[in-house]
Amino acid sequence: MTRRTVAEHISRVTDLLHGLDSLPACDATLAEALGRVLAADVHSPVDLPPFRNSQMDGYAVDAASLAAGTTTLPVRATIAAGESAPSHIAGTAIKIMTGAPIPEGADCVVPVEDTTTADGQVTVLRSRAAGDFVREAGSDVHTGDLLLPAGVVLGPRHIAALAAVGLTSTRVRRRPRVAVITTGTELVEGGLPLGPGQIYDSNGITLASCARANGAEVDSIARSSDDPDTFRKLLTVATDYADVVLTSGGVSMGDFEVVRAVLEPLGGEFGHVAMQPGGPQGTTVVDGVPVLSFPGNPVSTLVSFEVFARPLLRKAAGLPPIVAEELPVVDAVTSPPGKRQFLRGRREGGQVKLVSGPGSHLVAGMAWADVLLDIPAEVTTLVAGSTVTVWAL
Amino acid sequence: MTRRTVAEHISRVTDLLHGLDSLPACDATLAEALGRVLAADVHSPVDLPPFRNSQMDGYAVDAASLAAGTTTLPVRATIAAGESAPSHIAGTAIKIMTGAPIPEGADCVVPVEDTTTADGQVTVLRSRAAGDFVREAGSDVHTGDLLLPAGVVLGPRHIAALAAVGLTSTRVRRRPRVAVITTGTELVEGGLPLGPGQIYDSNGITLASCARANGAEVDSIARSSDDPDTFRKLLTVATDYADVVLTSGGVSMGDFEVVRAVLEPLGGEFGHVAMQPGGPQGTTVVDGVPVLSFPGNPVSTLVSFEVFARPLLRKAAGLPPIVAEELPVVDAVTSPPGKRQFLRGRREGGQVKLVSGPGSHLVAGMAWADVLLDIPAEVTTLVAGSTVTVWAL
Repeated sequence: MTRRTVAEHISRVTDLLHGLDSLPACDATLAEALGRVLAADVHSPVDLPPFRNSQMDGYAVDAASLAAGTTTLPVRATIAAGESAPSHIAGTAIKIMTGAPIPEGADCVVPVEDTTTADGQVTVLRSRAAGDFVREAGSDVHTGDLLLPAGVVLGPRHIAALAAVGLTSTRVRRRPRVAVITTGTELVEGGLPLGPGQIYDSNGITLASCARANGAEVDSIARSSDDPDTFRKLLTVATDYADVVLTSGGVSMGDFEVVRAVLEPLGGEFGHVAMQPGGPQGTTVVDGVPVLSFPGNPVSTLVSFEVFARPLLRKAAGLPPIVAEELPVVDAVTSPPGKRQFLRGRREGGQVKLVSGPGSHLVAGMAWADVLLDIPAEVTTLVAGSTVTVWAL
Repeated sequence: MTRRTVAEHISRVTDLLHGLDSLPACDATLAEALGRVLAADVHSPVDLPPFRNSQMDGYAVDAASLAAGTTTLPVRATIAAGESAPSHIAGTAIKIMTGAPIPEGADCVVPVEDTTTADGQVTVLRSRAAGDFVREAGSDVHTGDLLLPAGVVLGPRHIAALAAVGLTSTRVRRRPRVAVITTGTELVEGGLPLGPGQIYDSNGITLASCARANGAEVDSIARSSDDPDTFRKLLTVATDYADVVLTSGGVSMGDFEVVRAVLEPLGGEFGHVAMQPGGPQGTTVVDGVPVLSFPGNPVSTLVSFEVFARPLLRKAAGLPPIVAEELPVVDAVTSPPGKRQFLRGRREGGQVKLVSGPGSHLVAGMAWADVLLDIPAEVTTLVAGSTVTVWAL
C-alpha cells in the first residue's frame, strides 16, 4: 500500500470488517443475554397483565354498591395473589391483595386505607368509579404486540420484560470472535526469567483485554517466533475460529518481519500510516477472514487497536461509540509535522495533561493515562490552554 | 420505621452496606483481572525496558565515528530483537532491529532511512548525538517504582503494564456477592403455563441482571412462596453466601406479607418511603448480612434497585457513578404531591419524553424507557420545556 492517512486506513479497515455488522444469531438464556444485542423483534406471547387484577391491597366491590358517603358491606371472602377469584355478588365486598384477580362482577378496588372493618363487615368511606385501582388484562402489552425491537442492547429492564412474558431465552447476535497472534523471537511468557535481549510478551493479553472490553470474545491468544512456518500454522488456527485476527509485530522495515513476509504474498497490504505511534500497519484477508496487523511496540499496538479496531468491535457488539471530547491542554504541546500524533494524557479538572513521553515503548507510563490526545498531522505546536481532541481510553 | 423520605432511606441503606467498601482481596489472573479493582499497590519487579535497546531498525554506532557530512563504516554484524548483543568496535557499525539490545560501546542508532549500503558497508548521511534512538534501561519504569496504585479499575492499558513487567496475576478486590429472593405464591417459572391468578416471576432474573450489570456476582436466585418457613430457609442459604441479599415482594399492607412477617421479628425496619413507585421498603441485618426488601411490583422492584442499591454496588465494584442529567421535558408532566416520583422516560433529541404510564405493573412499557425522571415530592406540575433531573437506566 502507499503511504496513507489515518482516515484512509480507518476507511480500509471499515471495509474489511463490514461482516461484523451481520454476525449470525444464536440463542441465549436470559442470564446470558444481558448486555447482548437482540437479533430479532420479540412479540409478546401473552397479555400482560395476563388477567384483570388489583393494584392495591383492599376490597373488590362494584362501584354501584357504594353510596356518596360511607357504605358498609359484608366481606364474603379473601383472595390472595395467586388464587382463583370467586365470582362477586352485588352488595358484598371481597378482600383482595395486590395482584390478585378481580372477581367477576366486581369493577373497582377500594384501598384498605379508605376502609374500616368490624364483625366481618367493611365500611367504605367514599364512593369509587368503575375501573379504580383495577389493572386491565393486556394494559401493559397485548399478545402479539412488539415487546422489544431487534438491535436493542439488552439491559436489566429488557430482561425484565422478556421474563415477565414468560420467555426464558432469546435470539441475540453472536459476539465478534477475535483471535490474537503476537510475534517476536524476543518475547517471553510472563513469570519466566528474562534472558539477554528478551522482554515479556504483553501484547497478547493486552489485545485480548482490549477486544473483551469492547464486547468481543477471545478464545485464542498465540505467540509466534519470527519463523514463518510457526506464524503460518497459528494463522490457520486463528482464521478457522475468528471473525477478525489481530497480529502484533513483524510489520516494519527490519530484516525479520514475519507477519509481512507471510501475509504480503497472500495479498496483504503493508506500509505506513501517517501517525505516531502505530505507523507500520497491514491488512490482509486470509480465507475470508480479515487480519489487522499492528506494529509490535506495546504502545503502538494499543493505540492501533483504539484507533482502528475499537470503533468497529463496539458497533458489532452494540456498545455505544466512544465520543471525542474537546479539552484545553494544561501545558504547551509540540508535535512533529506530517504525522497525526496520539499522545497519552490524563484529565485533570476539565483540562488534559500529558503523561509519560511520546516513546512507543513506554507501556508502564501509558497506564497513568486515561485519554489519547489526537493532534492533527499539520499541527506542530499547541500553546497552553488551547483545545485538543481527546479520546477516552 | 416511620415514614421516610427517599434521601433518609438512601442514608439508611448506605450505612447498612458500608461493608461493601472493604471487601477482601483475592488473586486474579490478568485475564480475570480486567474490569476489577486493584486491591494493593503494585511495584515493578523489573526495569522496563529491561536493557538498553534500539528504537529503530538501523545501525548501532558510536556517535564519535560519524562526521558532519557522510561517513562510511563496515557492517560487522546484524543483531535481531531477542539476541544477545556482540560488543561494539569503534569505527564499525552493527545492523540492529527495533528492540534489539544496543551493543556495548555503541551509543546511538542511525535509522535505516538515513543510510545507504553497498559491499558490506553502510554510508551514514548525517551525524548523530549519543543517545539518539536509544531506549535506556528503566526509562519507562525502574525496579521498585510504583507501577499501579491500589483502587485502579483495571482496563486494558493496566493489564498491559502488569504483563510488560512479567506479572501473570494480581490482587483485586472481590466482587460484591448478591443473593436474590423473590416471593409470592402467584409466581410461576418462565416457560411453564400460567394457571388462574398466576404471573411469571420476572423479579428474580431482573434483580440478578441489575446486580451483574453493576459489577456484582449473583450465584443465587431463589423463589419463595408466601410460606414463612420456605422464606426462612432460603434466607439462610442467601446470608451464608452473600454480602447483600435483595428480596422482592411481601413488604406491603396485605395479609400475606411473608418478608415482613419473617424479618420484622429479626429487627427489620419496614414501612413507607415517600416515593412512587417503590413506596414499601424494608431493611434488616440477618447474621451480619444486610437484607434490602423491595416491593414486588416489577417496576417498583427495578426502581428500588436503581435508587437504593445501584450506587453502592457500583462504588464497591469500582464502576463510575451514574451522573444525573438535567433535560427539558417534551410534554407537561403532572405528579401527585408528597411523594418523589420516578417516571419512565426516553431521551429524544436533547429532551426527555414520558413513556408507558405511572403504573408499577407496566414492566413491558418500562423496556422502552432509557431514563428515570426524578420529580421532587413537592412538585405537582411541570410545564412543557421545563427542566427535570433524569437518571440513565
